[in-house]
Amino acid sequence: MEYSDATKELLNGAGASIGDHISVTTRGAVQRGMVMPRHMFTGPDILVLKLSSGYNIGLRIGEGTTLVLIEEAKKEERPSSTPPGTGLPPVAFLSTGGTIASYVDYRTGAVHPAVEAQDLLFTVPELSDLCEVRSTVLSSILSEDMDVALWQELANAIVLEFEKGARGVIVPHGTDTLGYTAAALSYMLTSLPGPVVLVGSQRSSDRPSSDATMNLLAATRVALAPIGEVVVVMHDSSSDDRCAIHRGSRVRKMHTSRRDAFQSINTLPLGYVEGKEVTILEKVRGLEKRAAADTRMEPNVVLVHAYPGITPARFSGMTSGAKGVVIAGTGLGHISSDIVPVISKLVAGGVRVVMTSQCLWGSTNLNVYSTGRELLQAGVEPCGDMLPETALVELMCRLARQPGKRGTDAGHRRERHE
Amino acid sequence: MEYSDATKELLNGAGASIGDHISVTTRGAVQRGMVMPRHMFTGPDILVLKLSSGYNIGLRIGEGTTLVLIEEAKKEERPSSTPPGTGLPPVAFLSTGGTIASYVDYRTGAVHPAVEAQDLLFTVPELSDLCEVRSTVLSSILSEDMDVALWQELANAIVLEFEKGARGVIVPHGTDTLGYTAAALSYMLTSLPGPVVLVGSQRSSDRPSSDATMNLLAATRVALAPIGEVVVVMHDSSSDDRCAIHRGSRVRKMHTSRRDAFQSINTLPLGYVEGKEVTILEKVRGLEKRAAADTRMEPNVVLVHAYPGITPARFSGMTSGAKGVVIAGTGLGHISSDIVPVISKLVAGGVRVVMTSQCLWGSTNLNVYSTGRELLQAGVEPCGDMLPETALVELMCRLARQPGKRGTDAGHRRERHE
Repeated sequence: MEYSDATKELLNGAGASIGDHISVTTRGAVQRGMVMPRHMFTGPDILVLKLSSGYNIGLRIGEGTTLVLIEEAKKEERPSSTPPGTGLPPVAFLSTGGTIASYVDYRTGAVHPAVEAQDLLFTVPELSDLCEVRSTVLSSILSEDMDVALWQELANAIVLEFEKGARGVIVPHGTDTLGYTAAALSYMLTSLPGPVVLVGSQRSSDRPSSDATMNLLAATRVALAPIGEVVVVMHDSSSDDRCAIHRGSRVRKMHTSRRDAFQSINTLPLGYVEGKEVTILEKVRGLEKRAAADTRMEPNVVLVHAYPGITPARFSGMTSGAKGVVIAGTGLGHISSDIVPVISKLVAGGVRVVMTSQCLWGSTNLNVYSTGRELLQAGVEPCGDMLPETALVELMCRLARQPGKRGTDAGHRRERHE
Repeated sequence: MEYSDATKELLNGAGASIGDHISVTTRGAVQRGMVMPRHMFTGPDILVLKLSSGYNIGLRIGEGTTLVLIEEAKKEERPSSTPPGTGLPPVAFLSTGGTIASYVDYRTGAVHPAVEAQDLLFTVPELSDLCEVRSTVLSSILSEDMDVALWQELANAIVLEFEKGARGVIVPHGTDTLGYTAAALSYMLTSLPGPVVLVGSQRSSDRPSSDATMNLLAATRVALAPIGEVVVVMHDSSSDDRCAIHRGSRVRKMHTSRRDAFQSINTLPLGYVEGKEVTILEKVRGLEKRAAADTRMEPNVVLVHAYPGITPARFSGMTSGAKGVVIAGTGLGHISSDIVPVISKLVAGGVRVVMTSQCLWGSTNLNVYSTGRELLQAGVEPCGDMLPETALVELMCRLARQPGKRGTDAGHRRERHE
């Protein structure tokens, strides 16, 4: 969250930045306080000051606003990791960005974007009671900008952390595409000696309702459990009573803003974290000796939503040049029957076309209705109860690993963890 | 559900068709019974016979199978409507096809596709205790083949039925695209003197677990209620205890096969039907004096799902030539930031681009993160908590009604019933 250019210029002009103490004069009124980062829900021209009372106020920056630097923020040395030799198990934190990676400085109340590795430990000091923290900032992006190259980099970095002795790896991640990344890592990481835990937060740490601290602590407890899988740990309800542990290939963001937005689809969560207790209720994959990744992915795969009125020409345009096509079909896995000949041509040309359902819950079944059977004859591969997002990354992996080979397991697709 | 060509040839060769009594000899064994339609979950080469015991058996048709016609089915005269003058309120049934329109002949157990108007009353005779049935088969399609022209025909037919005195109109519809049609009718039907009730079934009437009869009876009770809206009536749980009444613009199929697949999203159901009781719990639109429809729709609108790795070239190809674009974005309404310039160009070229969330639950908010603000600047219109499917048909209507005008109500979109 950045301030507007005008506000930034005013700050720069006074040599002031976030954390510094300033005085601001607007319309004759003077306010003194510490410059806070822009608040998520205020406009870019509202400068937020923390007053000595502890309260924050927003000041609208306009013509005639003047600003004077009083005192620069104290810079401190902050460790990016707890010192080794504490006897606690090492856990690696590989930050990618997102709301969870906006760390609050508890002394000043200021919110930092996660550009420095030490922010994490500084924000949630309780982490050092649980593990030896090894913190790295891999990237600081908005999660909607996640892509195949970043997934590959992340998978390699995870393997490296395990090779360096981490008991588990935690990936703080923006929630928008957290489900996609969890699925991608599930397929890329072929062998794991410890859990890979993706964690996000729906509300940033500067808000009283933030889920960041609880989710991070719960994720850390899961990172020490004997689970050789990629999982997602997030709030299980809109209260703060427990977090759920979701299988990486089975989880989806089902609400734009609630803290319990993430749900396991077509399966139950693997378990829960309540306070200090981690309870695993479903069968999970055990630990392997070493970490290994196969990061090959064909990025040229397209996800198409079926809807009434989609024309053969539109479908052709949407899928033109793709190596793989994932259809989020209607119902049991259908699309308007005049699309079937287009799909036949794609398959004949070597393109893999797979079918999921936009219902999200339930399984595809192409044997019930005539359109389904025609789609099967056209060479469409049904994905069972796999999420469209998971089918997308699964197909990206499969195309890169077996470029010339059609799936022989239509209807019974391999899912790494099941 | 049709039999294979080989099976049909065998039946035709003996002059036998569904409902006739035949004897079948396979591998020396003889079975006698009535020819049933192909069962949904058996292969096209399995001929289903109803034995005199009442049980059905499946016989695999292969080389050497012989078949002899014993007795043709009795054809009877069946009324397509109850006689007027019963004093009961008239209700029009406009069938479009789908599983619910597979009517069971209770005497024979045979399942008919709904190609004749009389099938409905014949199947659920209890309907004539509730209303004067006026039954018409508009189409007999698989609902994935629904399109704009059929929506327009349906809306006009509904207005006509009200003009002819119907108290309410019921639309039996395949469940795949029932939600889309409900939303389309919600926007097309601008004035209603009675309810328009869409109803489907997830299991056909030949299965013990069928929801067809209960849904049809519940729909009929709702069609007599004072609701001037388009609603969907379907099972509310997987048991047979009650049906829910969903607002047409707010409902989505959320499971491929469960009977309670339909859910109101971002709102509660308007009410419930338990036995004979219809209970309305939310505020509904009252009855107008006359029915009216504005059936203009621009069909050239595309629905695009945002996902990691979607490239500007891919997005351009998906939206090429469209008059309107609905994005099912990630989270609060985002897409990879390198797509923003493509969207700017589209909007500058007169294309309307609107943003929904693939989370389905919750509302878009393009003011929180930088990508959202860039999308707003590019001219994207946020759709609040509107479903992507509803936004699609809403945009189709809006483009046809105000072709040159950009929405001025971004973020607060009109929804007809709210």
